[in-house]
Amino acid sequence: MVILGKSSQRMARFLKNRQNTLGKSPGTLTFIGRKKMEQPRFRLISYANNSFTDEEYSSYQQVIEAIDPSRVCWINIDGIHDPDVVAGICNYAGVSPLTQEDIVNTDRRPKVTEEKDSLVVILKVLSFNKDRKNIASDQITFILAQNLLITFQEKVGDYFNPIRERLEQNIGKLRSSSADYLLYRLIDAMADNYLITIGILGEMIEKNEDLLLKKTNPQFIRDIYFYKTEISFLRKIIRPAKEVSKILKNSDTNLIANSTQPYLDHLDDLLTYALETVETYYAMTSDQLTIYNTNINNRSNEVMKVLTIYASIFIPLTFIVGVYGTNFDFVPEYHFRYGYYAMWAGMLILSFAMLIYFRRKKWL
Amino acid sequence: MVILGKSSQRMARFLKNRQNTLGKSPGTLTFIGRKKMEQPRFRLISYANNSFTDEEYSSYQQVIEAIDPSRVCWINIDGIHDPDVVAGICNYAGVSPLTQEDIVNTDRRPKVTEEKDSLVVILKVLSFNKDRKNIASDQITFILAQNLLITFQEKVGDYFNPIRERLEQNIGKLRSSSADYLLYRLIDAMADNYLITIGILGEMIEKNEDLLLKKTNPQFIRDIYFYKTEISFLRKIIRPAKEVSKILKNSDTNLIANSTQPYLDHLDDLLTYALETVETYYAMTSDQLTIYNTNINNRSNEVMKVLTIYASIFIPLTFIVGVYGTNFDFVPEYHFRYGYYAMWAGMLILSFAMLIYFRRKKWL
Amino acid sequence: MVILGKSSQRMARFLKNRQNTLGKSPGTLTFIGRKKMEQPRFRLISYANNSFTDEEYSSYQQVIEAIDPSRVCWINIDGIHDPDVVAGICNYAGVSPLTQEDIVNTDRRPKVTEEKDSLVVILKVLSFNKDRKNIASDQITFILAQNLLITFQEKVGDYFNPIRERLEQNIGKLRSSSADYLLYRLIDAMADNYLITIGILGEMIEKNEDLLLKKTNPQFIRDIYFYKTEISFLRKIIRPAKEVSKILKNSDTNLIANSTQPYLDHLDDLLTYALETVETYYAMTSDQLTIYNTNINNRSNEVMKVLTIYASIFIPLTFIVGVYGTNFDFVPEYHFRYGYYAMWAGMLILSFAMLIYFRRKKWL
Amino acid sequence: MVILGKSSQRMARFLKNRQNTLGKSPGTLTFIGRKKMEQPRFRLISYANNSFTDEEYSSYQQVIEAIDPSRVCWINIDGIHDPDVVAGICNYAGVSPLTQEDIVNTDRRPKVTEEKDSLVVILKVLSFNKDRKNIASDQITFILAQNLLITFQEKVGDYFNPIRERLEQNIGKLRSSSADYLLYRLIDAMADNYLITIGILGEMIEKNEDLLLKKTNPQFIRDIYFYKTEISFLRKIIRPAKEVSKILKNSDTNLIANSTQPYLDHLDDLLTYALETVETYYAMTSDQLTIYNTNINNRSNEVMKVLTIYASIFIPLTFIVGVYGTNFDFVPEYHFRYGYYAMWAGMLILSFAMLIYFRRKKWL
Amino acid sequence: MVILGKSSQRMARFLKNRQNTLGKSPGTLTFIGRKKMEQPRFRLISYANNSFTDEEYSSYQQVIEAIDPSRVCWINIDGIHDPDVVAGICNYAGVSPLTQEDIVNTDRRPKVTEEKDSLVVILKVLSFNKDRKNIASDQITFILAQNLLITFQEKVGDYFNPIRERLEQNIGKLRSSSADYLLYRLIDAMADNYLITIGILGEMIEKNEDLLLKKTNPQFIRDIYFYKTEISFLRKIIRPAKEVSKILKNSDTNLIANSTQPYLDHLDDLLTYALETVETYYAMTSDQLTIYNTNINNRSNEVMKVLTIYASIFIPLTFIVGVYGTNFDFVPEYHFRYGYYAMWAGMLILSFAMLIYFRRKKWL
Repeated sequence: MVILGKSSQRMARFLKNRQNTLGKSPGTLTFIGRKKMEQPRFRLISYANNSFTDEEYSSYQQVIEAIDPSRVCWINIDGIHDPDVVAGICNYAGVSPLTQEDIVNTDRRPKVTEEKDSLVVILKVLSFNKDRKNIASDQITFILAQNLLITFQEKVGDYFNPIRERLEQNIGKLRSSSADYLLYRLIDAMADNYLITIGILGEMIEKNEDLLLKKTNPQFIRDIYFYKTEISFLRKIIRPAKEVSKILKNSDTNLIANSTQPYLDHLDDLLTYALETVETYYAMTSDQLTIYNTNINNRSNEVMKVLTIYASIFIPLTFIVGVYGTNFDFVPEYHFRYGYYAMWAGMLILSFAMLIYFRRKKWL
Repeated sequence: MVILGKSSQRMARFLKNRQNTLGKSPGTLTFIGRKKMEQPRFRLISYANNSFTDEEYSSYQQVIEAIDPSRVCWINIDGIHDPDVVAGICNYAGVSPLTQEDIVNTDRRPKVTEEKDSLVVILKVLSFNKDRKNIASDQITFILAQNLLITFQEKVGDYFNPIRERLEQNIGKLRSSSADYLLYRLIDAMADNYLITIGILGEMIEKNEDLLLKKTNPQFIRDIYFYKTEISFLRKIIRPAKEVSKILKNSDTNLIANSTQPYLDHLDDLLTYALETVETYYAMTSDQLTIYNTNINNRSNEVMKVLTIYASIFIPLTFIVGVYGTNFDFVPEYHFRYGYYAMWAGMLILSFAMLIYFRRKKWL
Repeated sequence: MVILGKSSQRMARFLKNRQNTLGKSPGTLTFIGRKKMEQPRFRLISYANNSFTDEEYSSYQQVIEAIDPSRVCWINIDGIHDPDVVAGICNYAGVSPLTQEDIVNTDRRPKVTEEKDSLVVILKVLSFNKDRKNIASDQITFILAQNLLITFQEKVGDYFNPIRERLEQNIGKLRSSSADYLLYRLIDAMADNYLITIGILGEMIEKNEDLLLKKTNPQFIRDIYFYKTEISFLRKIIRPAKEVSKILKNSDTNLIANSTQPYLDHLDDLLTYALETVETYYAMTSDQLTIYNTNINNRSNEVMKVLTIYASIFIPLTFIVGVYGTNFDFVPEYHFRYGYYAMWAGMLILSFAMLIYFRRKKWL
Repeated sequence: MVILGKSSQRMARFLKNRQNTLGKSPGTLTFIGRKKMEQPRFRLISYANNSFTDEEYSSYQQVIEAIDPSRVCWINIDGIHDPDVVAGICNYAGVSPLTQEDIVNTDRRPKVTEEKDSLVVILKVLSFNKDRKNIASDQITFILAQNLLITFQEKVGDYFNPIRERLEQNIGKLRSSSADYLLYRLIDAMADNYLITIGILGEMIEKNEDLLLKKTNPQFIRDIYFYKTEISFLRKIIRPAKEVSKILKNSDTNLIANSTQPYLDHLDDLLTYALETVETYYAMTSDQLTIYNTNINNRSNEVMKVLTIYASIFIPLTFIVGVYGTNFDFVPEYHFRYGYYAMWAGMLILSFAMLIYFRRKKWL
Repeated sequence: MVILGKSSQRMARFLKNRQNTLGKSPGTLTFIGRKKMEQPRFRLISYANNSFTDEEYSSYQQVIEAIDPSRVCWINIDGIHDPDVVAGICNYAGVSPLTQEDIVNTDRRPKVTEEKDSLVVILKVLSFNKDRKNIASDQITFILAQNLLITFQEKVGDYFNPIRERLEQNIGKLRSSSADYLLYRLIDAMADNYLITIGILGEMIEKNEDLLLKKTNPQFIRDIYFYKTEISFLRKIIRPAKEVSKILKNSDTNLIANSTQPYLDHLDDLLTYALETVETYYAMTSDQLTIYNTNINNRSNEVMKVLTIYASIFIPLTFIVGVYGTNFDFVPEYHFRYGYYAMWAGMLILSFAMLIYFRRKKWL
């Protein structure tokens, strides 16, 4: 059922080609990754306790102009391949060029950077293609400033839709809270995204054990290699995300209100749990592989015993009948009255002796 | 003897389905897990040095009303699938909504949370079904407040019965102590529960070694996979419980009296011991698997030697008798007076040569 | 040579049955373990610079009465299965009930507890049964108080005899030192006991390598499993003992004189060395197992080559002679003058071709 | 495609021959390594905001004379096998003899040393020979002093060309910054060098998985050993480089301006990422090897089943026809009218029985 | 080429027999180890800026008398089996009895002890017997006091000769420095000794890879086990030596001048490098073993395929010719005009069918 993605696709997973950034200044914005959409899209949601607006814009200048500092504003940009757009937005939010470089370079570790007036959190979000059975990651950047949250996504995604809907319908305490709480809610949505992805993969791994003790099938081997690689990929994404949550939790920036602190603890717990579960599944795939190997060895042993028993019984018998197939002129047994029956009797006795021998050896 | 639980059941063990909480506010109480009983049950035990009452109630409002702040009260609620009940009780005890969410979500790490006026400890209790040979976990929550201990259980359990009986019969220093000592005694009962579960599993693993060097049997493989998975499960439960005990031990909350401190040290020792024993058993199953594999390889080698010796001796002999079974008109040996006996002599010499050869190779 | 102990005996090693302590108060003295002697024995040795007495008593009350606070007194009790005795002695020395519980419970981690006026050290001592080739542990408790050292042993042992003799004969500085130096000397004797046990086991493991490259023998597998299990057992005993020595070394209790400090450093070094050696031997058994496996694979490969060469050469030959054993009316070769010799020639050529083929393949 | 380098070449990788430094004073400059060029080359680049000079010199005295302390000077020396040259330059920059020894000894760990007036950073740069498929390392030393950066390379390399060009063409903020920023840019170029090398190797490893489940081929084994060794080599180079970047980042030397600090953080992130990727690839090669092994076992099992089925069916049949090939005078079956057909019938029945048996065993 | 040392010799490596020290006082000097020379030898080198004397003495009293406190004196004693000698020298240098015990006990971890007026460093030196291919260790003790360095060696060694010669010929800054610099130089010589030993072993291990993919040979297995054991031995020696260098580096004793500090940093780097290289080689031997195993499996698979193809083709053919070798009275085929040729035709068709089948299976 699982078809291994072509290596050209997987190749991009563990390290992306970076030859085109060589020698460039740090802070030079060069998009690294696969361009996933044509035109960046800008969306500004602004809200206060009793009002909510949600509008799309076609250029970053427009969206910046539309910011109302008296309300909480959330700007979402889909598409990061245009350095001008990223630079324009980031400069507005006071993000340094070095950090801007991290935003457009999708081949970096998730990280958190404290700028002078803003906090930049870069994470990866996972998506699982049920048809191609392949986990992919997209980079998502959060810039938290005073009353402002900016999110950059590589392509249009639906991870944040539930939260946008809750904002619109004024459910929960989102509207009455400041931008840092919105940030927490969005990161929490990504932690959920991790757990769901682990869950889907984990379900496949746990189901795998049904194949484990069945007959030797190459399908199992292909699957288990796939699972091991995917889990390594997950671990490489989630481990630094855990570090990010720990840094956020211990950060003393005044962009994060004290009231948001318990939520960050909560987030940290969630990611610890995610990481532990990933480790458990990784160990589980290794165990399954060992068990499978043991099982094959066991079966090979059984097969060889069958062969050996057959061969050991019949090879001597075939030899005996061969002896009496010879055409010598003088073979006295040929002329015995019961020579033929004596041969049968001898062969039966020999067979029984062999059977007893194998039974003693506990092969039967 | 061991029958692997169906994967649908085990699937729920390492990560539960959480798709139905997506986007909900933190603090929204959504029960995650399998509903294990119909109707929550409320029990209030209150005691002082020389009095003891034990009553059941049908609603949480009744039980809250019945609390007598001048005595130590222990409320036990069986069944956490009704969010209203949990919220009602927790609000009375001053537990924040975020922590309430943890209480009804059975797919979380064991943890300890210090609230303003209370201390919330969430742990898992293990139960071992001797028939189905499967370890299951239930979540148990302890809320410690001034003169009050609240426990939430997923279903009716008997873990706390011995302590309830000691309270009723006024054995030991339970009645003369405050609620924190009761908390310690209940957690200690859970540590005992862990050790007993480890003990049962450990006994099965240690017995397993009798099968280890016996003949190759698929039963062993099935069992060892089962043990490895169960031990992983135990480790995932006990490791955070150990962290909980360490946090409790180092906590400076004034809900825990100084006199209870040595007991918490004691508890921490117990859980360290449990964790070390789990690790020892995990390593032991891996060692058993390796030994078993080595043993199979050894046996396959033996089987193959038997086959090779048989084949190597009889195949040439069969060839020779075949030669003298040919029907050529002119085969001089056919007409030798002792041709037949010469053939036998040749074959005997050849066999002895082969036997000597194999003996030299140390295969015999 | 090694006979695996019955699993019922080994079962007791990694975790003892604790079902009979369930729900009991902490501090309730319930002996856990195997009762190893009938009647506890009391021995009081008291000494000063120039005097030494050594007497046995039949009850703990007598021995307490006999204590002379102006001299250093060493009370040794063999047998801890009678809670009254342990409680009586411990209460005299001011040991809390919780620690008393640890003394009679032989299924606990080695530990050190600082009580108000005393220091309690619980360790395990190892004994190696050369006949049954099985390592067993006994718990030994040391209680250090002002001018007083109390030792509890599970059964009569001879670990302390050399030190008792040196005391009696006034060799070294034992008599002129205080009780803490005696404590050090006794613990040092136990560290020596660990090193000797490791040494005996290690000698067996190092000798094992002679079997390693010999022919495949199941004896090796049985032994190596035994060694791995025993070394795990040692590690589980010695690791916490190392922790104990570190705590002792860093302790600031005034029961331990400054002059004793260098000896504790020394002790800590010794236990570090013991632990490192145990780890080295554990890795060594794993390496031996891997090497042995590789060796078996190598031999199986050799065996299979022999079989394949024999079969590949003789099976075609047997086929050929079979062809000329057929009884068709019209087989022209039968009537050739040199048909028989031509067949032989053909077969010889074929055999040589095969031999050259196998030589090219480097199988010969 | 991959040809393992001759061992004499690889031998030099993990530890170089150091027998010729025995007993020499520390600080005695003895070149250790392979001499990679004939004549050292000296190049002095000096720049200020609006000027840039780039000249080659033939002796180190000349280049020292040419230094203009009012401008930022960058001296690059290619070739470190002449101790006089290294000593001459280093003495000018105030580098102690002990550190000079490290510069000419190419068999040392990358490190950073703070001298009184300078900072010495020693790193390795990797080069990947696509033809010989072999990763080699060259040592590069950076000496940072006031307004001066000196770089020593083992041979002429092109790692720094992009930066030299940017300096010349006055791109970015290089010219307007002090020497420490130039140092950062050069080290950053080396980090890029690491990532590119990992990338090339990683691509080969990820492509390897296409071979993984194909038929058993010795090519795979040769490649995977090669990859494992190369990755170990990378790890041995990159791990201490990561330590260097951490020391630089936390250093409080005033040779590094505060404005350069964020760049060093950035560098540290990059190297952490490089190291994590190396670890991921190392684990990946191990997983591939295990999967490959499992696959071989699986195939061997299949092969053996085919053999066993063939042999088990035909060996008894051959025996039967052998029986009726015997030449006894009295074999009653010979004279039955349908004896021959009865034999065929019996053999067909036997064959079907065997086929059903193997199907029941799930071998077919 | 490598012949495994007899186990009796290796046995002494990981733990020496210590049964003869049981119960003795700490500080009782009991030599533990193999006596490696008959008579201790005493040598006193004393030097100042412009003078140098080097003399041998026959007793320790003489050498002590000959010490000139106004010059730097270096006493070397070869042979530590005579406790009187060690005690006499150590008492002069103010070394405590407990440390003296460590000096004569060659079965201890390398360590550093700060005494009141002296610093005692105990290390192991390695020697590699190229003939017996066995690494052995000797203990070397350094006692640093004011203007005095004492070295104890188990037997006459040449590790320090280069330094003695430099002293005599007044090369470098040895003569103008104090005793602590001499100590550094001697320890540095030992670090070089480690690196050379690692280098020799490493060369053998790296050469081993040439055998790796050659035909299955038991030689490889024997060698690799030998290398693994030797590397474990190295690690056990070098790891604590690394600890010693770290303690020396961080020590604040005033026996070590500030000017010696950079040299100790240097030493620490060197030992870190040594330890990392040992770890790399250890991992390399494990990788080689795994690769070798995979290779054997691969070859076994190939061998089995050859066997199976031969057998599967010829066994049916042999059966067919057997059928036509039967002696039934009525076999119609016997009398067909082209019966014999029809049989051949059938067999050829069958063979081709089999070949196509195996080609489809990719076995050919």
